[in-house]
Amino acid sequence: MGNRRMQRWVDSSSGGSSGGGRQRASALVAAAAASAEQQQQQQQQQRATRASFEQYILDLQRRIIEDAEALDGSGAKFVHDRWERSPGDPNAGYGITSVLEGGSVLEKAAANISVVAGVLSKERAAAMSSRGRAAIDPAGGQPYSAAAMSLVFHSAHPRIPTLRADVRLFEVAGQQWYGGGCDLTPFYPCDQDFAEFHAFWKAACDAHDPKLYPEFKAWCDRYFYIPARKEHRGVGGLFFDDVEASAAAGYDVEQFVRDVGDGILPSWTNIVQRRRAEPFTDAERQWQLLRRGRYLEFNLLYDRGVKFGLDGSRVESIMVSAPPLIAWRYNVQPEAGSEEAALVDLLRSPRDWA
Amino acid sequence: MGNRRMQRWVDSSSGGSSGGGRQRASALVAAAAASAEQQQQQQQQQRATRASFEQYILDLQRRIIEDAEALDGSGAKFVHDRWERSPGDPNAGYGITSVLEGGSVLEKAAANISVVAGVLSKERAAAMSSRGRAAIDPAGGQPYSAAAMSLVFHSAHPRIPTLRADVRLFEVAGQQWYGGGCDLTPFYPCDQDFAEFHAFWKAACDAHDPKLYPEFKAWCDRYFYIPARKEHRGVGGLFFDDVEASAAAGYDVEQFVRDVGDGILPSWTNIVQRRRAEPFTDAERQWQLLRRGRYLEFNLLYDRGVKFGLDGSRVESIMVSAPPLIAWRYNVQPEAGSEEAALVDLLRSPRDWA
Repeated sequence: MGNRRMQRWVDSSSGGSSGGGRQRASALVAAAAASAEQQQQQQQQQRATRASFEQYILDLQRRIIEDAEALDGSGAKFVHDRWERSPGDPNAGYGITSVLEGGSVLEKAAANISVVAGVLSKERAAAMSSRGRAAIDPAGGQPYSAAAMSLVFHSAHPRIPTLRADVRLFEVAGQQWYGGGCDLTPFYPCDQDFAEFHAFWKAACDAHDPKLYPEFKAWCDRYFYIPARKEHRGVGGLFFDDVEASAAAGYDVEQFVRDVGDGILPSWTNIVQRRRAEPFTDAERQWQLLRRGRYLEFNLLYDRGVKFGLDGSRVESIMVSAPPLIAWRYNVQPEAGSEEAALVDLLRSPRDWA
Repeated sequence: MGNRRMQRWVDSSSGGSSGGGRQRASALVAAAAASAEQQQQQQQQQRATRASFEQYILDLQRRIIEDAEALDGSGAKFVHDRWERSPGDPNAGYGITSVLEGGSVLEKAAANISVVAGVLSKERAAAMSSRGRAAIDPAGGQPYSAAAMSLVFHSAHPRIPTLRADVRLFEVAGQQWYGGGCDLTPFYPCDQDFAEFHAFWKAACDAHDPKLYPEFKAWCDRYFYIPARKEHRGVGGLFFDDVEASAAAGYDVEQFVRDVGDGILPSWTNIVQRRRAEPFTDAERQWQLLRRGRYLEFNLLYDRGVKFGLDGSRVESIMVSAPPLIAWRYNVQPEAGSEEAALVDLLRSPRDWA
């Protein structure tokens, strides 16, 4: 980007001069040297950003695991699987899949790192290009690198919603984009909890730019939608993608993304503490198992991350996001006026929570 | 088809004649009349085929439901939902979704009819055209009609495999194609059962043409495959699609398809009777719940019928195929030498069973 801007400046200044060939050649040599230097600086800057983001997500995963084990409190621990792919592989790199199963609150919780590099497939490049990433050749073939921390916590309690979140950095052709988000998939309409969750994320966004929360809240509602059910998957939160860290953004994108990562567990903790001791019935647990089906329907039918992930990644690191136990019964319709019916209503039309 | 062939014959005979304009014109009029008559006959024949197939699948559904309730023996009954779509709808027509839940053998069983007509979408037309259906314009927009009976029986017993089957007729642009199949998704390696099942279907195919079983058995193995898992979904059976009922087939395609429909329940009954009284452990039931996850992964990630079905159909009539209860645990690896490990080995490389 800087490189290209420099080139334009050289062209217009040399075009405007009336000097001889020698003067012009020496200006071009100097410009080329300056351009190479700037390009090198830019590449160094990118490497620094990537290394620092990788360090950040490794640290974030470690902190989340520590805090989640403490929050669960049953003594259940995460197990950690580190996987690695050789540079010859289409998705070279490594990941750490960390999973806790059978906790008191955390029936199944996964917090995963992946740091990969490869060559963009045609399908993936076409999809990204169609979303407006101008630097991406829709024909594919460009090298990319990506680093992400992603998390799904399935709770054992029907009044504690599923928590999903991620932060990610993606690089192609000298451009860096951030993505991420954090959202809730509840089973019962606990409006106070949802309003608090959204207020938390509104405050986190507003600290950077008041335009962020409305934009990323709406994006989340749009993204987590199941057309065949005419339902949103949950009560939303934040979702963003393709955000370029540039001066034009008007806020510090990198710092914003780190604030999102840091906020994931704190945005959920109050809800867990408020609800964990509430008694629940077998019928409420059955409703939770039925609603979990929607979580999986969205993941397997529509989620971009899952589709790309299964196309070459380690399948167990993708499917670890599946709920631990799901029921499907035919045409379950909650009783009119029930809490279950109120939940379905909530998912039909997103609300302004904050 | 007949219409176009007639037109070509008229062209070449009139081109070869040396007669005057009047003689030629009268030949064209006669040919056009013959052609119109033939077209009308063809359309009548198609309508007759369609009506008779619709009658066949309605009757088949009724017989299967009766036999399945008797086989289950618990007194649990199918419930029946008839749905209808107005002609203005992109998928006009009707269906009967019939479901039994909570039987002694049949934990969840669905046998569905759908009889629909509409206009081919671009995506669907492109997919069909790419599979070699020459009469289909890949740009979409052609009217189609379709009639199908499809069935999934999820058993409560880990040693009774899931039974999936269907028979279907599809029409576009004056052409009629049949499809169908019947296959098993087991949880334990009961080789005797699988060999008997395949022998049943080989005999049913051989009665029409000895080339059918090898072709449709291999097609089934190819179709029900989960690339991300490097596993076939089950031990197969028959699968076929795009089969044209023409003299060129060399056998009575329509009758073959009816024999497939009639064979569905008989091909499974012996297995049920042999296994239903065998005791099983909690661990075996857990393994069944885990393996059921693969059934759903295939359905939501890869199955053509589900993809097209969700794109405009009644979602509960599609998702009724989902197993009643599924578990997902992280990275479950059966113990070496166990029956569970033997099952996974079976699914990695299809065998010649018959």
